[in-house]
Amino acid sequence: QPTNGFDQSYRDSSKRKRVMVIGGDGYCGWATALHLSKKNYEVAIVDNLIRRTFDLQLGLDSLTPIASIHDRVSRWKSLTGKNIELYIGDICDFEFFSAAFKSFEPDTVVHFGEQRSAPYSMMDRPRALFTQSNNVIGTLNVLFAIKEFNEDCHMVKLGTMGEYGTPNIDIEEGYITITHNGRTDTLPYPKQANSFYHLSKVHDSNNIHFSCKTWGIRATDLNQGVVYGVRTDETDMHEELCNRLDYDGVFGTALNRFCVQAAVGHPLTVYGKGGQTRGYLDIRDTVQCMELAIANPAKPGEFRVFNQFTEQFSVRDLATLVSKAGEKLGIDVKTITVPNPVSKMRSTITMLSALSLSRLHLMAHIFITSYLYFLDNVACCFAENVDWVRICPSKSLKKCKARPKLAQ
Amino acid sequence: QPTNGFDQSYRDSSKRKRVMVIGGDGYCGWATALHLSKKNYEVAIVDNLIRRTFDLQLGLDSLTPIASIHDRVSRWKSLTGKNIELYIGDICDFEFFSAAFKSFEPDTVVHFGEQRSAPYSMMDRPRALFTQSNNVIGTLNVLFAIKEFNEDCHMVKLGTMGEYGTPNIDIEEGYITITHNGRTDTLPYPKQANSFYHLSKVHDSNNIHFSCKTWGIRATDLNQGVVYGVRTDETDMHEELCNRLDYDGVFGTALNRFCVQAAVGHPLTVYGKGGQTRGYLDIRDTVQCMELAIANPAKPGEFRVFNQFTEQFSVRDLATLVSKAGEKLGIDVKTITVPNPVSKMRSTITMLSALSLSRLHLMAHIFITSYLYFLDNVACCFAENVDWVRICPSKSLKKCKARPKLAQ
Ligand SMILES: NC(=O)c1ccc[n+]([C@@H]2O[C@H](COP(=O)([O-])OP(=O)(O)OC[C@H]3O[C@@H](n4cnc5c(N)ncnc54)[C@H](O)[C@@H]3O)[C@@H](O)[C@H]2O)c1
Ligand SMILES: NC(=O)c1ccc[n+]([C@@H]2O[C@H](COP(=O)([O-])OP(=O)(O)OC[C@H]3O[C@@H](n4cnc5c(N)ncnc54)[C@H](O)[C@@H]3O)[C@@H](O)[C@H]2O)c1
Repeated sequence: QPTNGFDQSYRDSSKRKRVMVIGGDGYCGWATALHLSKKNYEVAIVDNLIRRTFDLQLGLDSLTPIASIHDRVSRWKSLTGKNIELYIGDICDFEFFSAAFKSFEPDTVVHFGEQRSAPYSMMDRPRALFTQSNNVIGTLNVLFAIKEFNEDCHMVKLGTMGEYGTPNIDIEEGYITITHNGRTDTLPYPKQANSFYHLSKVHDSNNIHFSCKTWGIRATDLNQGVVYGVRTDETDMHEELCNRLDYDGVFGTALNRFCVQAAVGHPLTVYGKGGQTRGYLDIRDTVQCMELAIANPAKPGEFRVFNQFTEQFSVRDLATLVSKAGEKLGIDVKTITVPNPVSKMRSTITMLSALSLSRLHLMAHIFITSYLYFLDNVACCFAENVDWVRICPSKSLKKCKARPKLAQ
Repeated sequence: QPTNGFDQSYRDSSKRKRVMVIGGDGYCGWATALHLSKKNYEVAIVDNLIRRTFDLQLGLDSLTPIASIHDRVSRWKSLTGKNIELYIGDICDFEFFSAAFKSFEPDTVVHFGEQRSAPYSMMDRPRALFTQSNNVIGTLNVLFAIKEFNEDCHMVKLGTMGEYGTPNIDIEEGYITITHNGRTDTLPYPKQANSFYHLSKVHDSNNIHFSCKTWGIRATDLNQGVVYGVRTDETDMHEELCNRLDYDGVFGTALNRFCVQAAVGHPLTVYGKGGQTRGYLDIRDTVQCMELAIANPAKPGEFRVFNQFTEQFSVRDLATLVSKAGEKLGIDVKTITVPNPVSKMRSTITMLSALSLSRLHLMAHIFITSYLYFLDNVACCFAENVDWVRICPSKSLKKCKARPKLAQ
């Protein structure tokens, strides 16, 4: 039975100190790796840099200039004296991944390392298949490595709130208690994913849940909301540590796109009616949540699910809040509606449950303050980097010649 | 909303006549292909013969001698004058599969073509990954081919009752209506798969459901119970048309194993408590159900789910019924309990719903009569072929050197 409970024997966080961050060159992973390193964890980054390859293939780039992973890690070392181990390779390659795992001996694996763009997964058949294959095979390899080399290793997996879809009932944390024809059971919350990418996350969750029950693995599935922001205390320490910020139609996400649109005077593009409720969180809260999940691991055999977000809004409400933030900074922000390129979603206001985070005493950033800070920063420092083609919603994404290979 | 309804414009089955049977060299597919051909459908078989390769690799074989797919199809033609098109290749290879699809122009695809053994999928990491990759990528390719070449083509997919797991509430057909915190919705029935194979079926169901909603595809997911028997009217016509019958610990399924065990005087091996309720059906009913599903297709955009079985029993009850059938034939049948090699399942008696089949007026075979017929046939004709090593439960399956490649 899921308890969202914490294994008391590990409350002393000095017991879990070696964290392997898969996807640690990406948006969430890089910020997390630095935060953990700052807090005296031994950190390794595993990444095959495929995300940077997608930028090259699709003619996209981060708004903020980012250094190579080698320069990033080197700069961190010279500023702090702390080492971050680098393993450059594909986790779908078990020979590579098992060697990295055996070499670094993590007690925790944080798995960010997936193809996470819904529009990318919907561009064409090869990209849909790549997304599912990369994500599902990668996650299976992590599970098998844990089983084979250290079954006590805690897996912290990034899921997504999008796995739940838009049901007409409240969304709970991973499980729901159902009474049917006179009997009752607590079962996995039904999933209704909205793209081949979101489906891959559902496949992952199902595979991990089974592995916990069957092999006694400890795993936490973080169904994270949409992350916004770009700065953290650690990335602020030097320009070479700067995190990426995506605002294009493929990899850009709602609030980041709105921020860049507002900063340059482009109207906020709201897809469809914009009525759907979603959860959001500042990247400074992402990294806090990661540390809380690591320091309070799941129990052996437990498939623990957290809905990881700090506030919930409809997209239309967000556009209004962004406009207000703009006003405070003297920016006139307009909104326009465009057809939803991915798929039709029902416009329902749903209560999203994120009880576990309050139990962990997360000190969350307040949206309106955070967002002001974010918008101000982007508007003053990066507005001139904006590519006006990328800022528009992607109507029809041009096919590229370079096709990703399926996981071997 | 799912209706388990039938598209009235296609009640006249002469409108859907071209059926592509993927996995048509296998146990269910071969019987189905012949049955459809006998009923004047134009039939194509698509198969890469990987199932036969597994036999070679693991040192297994069908109890009944089977001809090559080429001899099978050739014999059918000389007996009936009917052609069955043969496409030998891997559906994970889209170049091959799209050429077959464009060449044959099916209006219905029946998809049996997967790695369907739970024990096989649990042998080791490469086989677990192969199972998921082969099954998920194959199904995605079928969906994309339908979308690209004939979006009106009806996909009849073999799922499995095992997707539901063993919940403490009644199992419905694919969907469940939930009232929660004052609101109600009909959502996909929560899945709790029990092996990497069963998980791959859950991934398939989720992928197909999304494709129906997004692309307007017509699909029927047949969550089939455990099939037993070996003879159908068509396979009876000649020994070269004989179907395979597996009784080993990897590919043999409950009732087929019990039948062979009983026929040779080996005790029936019941895994664990044997209390779990499962659905069963005679292979002569499988082929009828396939035709009913084809002649009454799902509507465009509908993800229709049938629980395909005719009777439900606990495994322990089955052992008792098999013993009784044995008695009638003068065979003394004993039962022994062995630990469950795949995983622990809760022993709950659950009502399984299979309402749709009765609406389709399936003329089901009665278990006790069918089973007597089956046991008698096996005992008198094939008992001497039995390999006594294969008949035992597989405690630890020997690793083979030949490793399957993941889907490209
Ligand atoms: N950004 C968000 O708003 C958000 C919200 C919810 C959940 N998430 C989840 O968090 C995770 C990280 O998101 P992100 O925004 O940092 O994505 P990102 O694309 O910036 O980072 C992912 C990283 O993983 C790497 N990677 C991908 N496949 C790999 C493989 N097979 N082997 C090795 N490395 C591989 C990429 O190169 C990249 O550096 C994803 O799983 C995503 O689903 C993100
Ligand atoms: N046998 C049962 O009791 C039972 C019960 C419920 C559901 N099912 C389902 O029915 C389907 C068929 O079962 P079966 O017992 O006939 O299995 P089977 O193994 O006898 O037949 C499967 C066939 O598919 C082919 N195949 C597999 N992967 C392929 C690929 N990538 N490309 C082309 N061909 C491929 C194999 O070579 C084989 O001939 C499976 O999906 C199974 O899950 C079977």
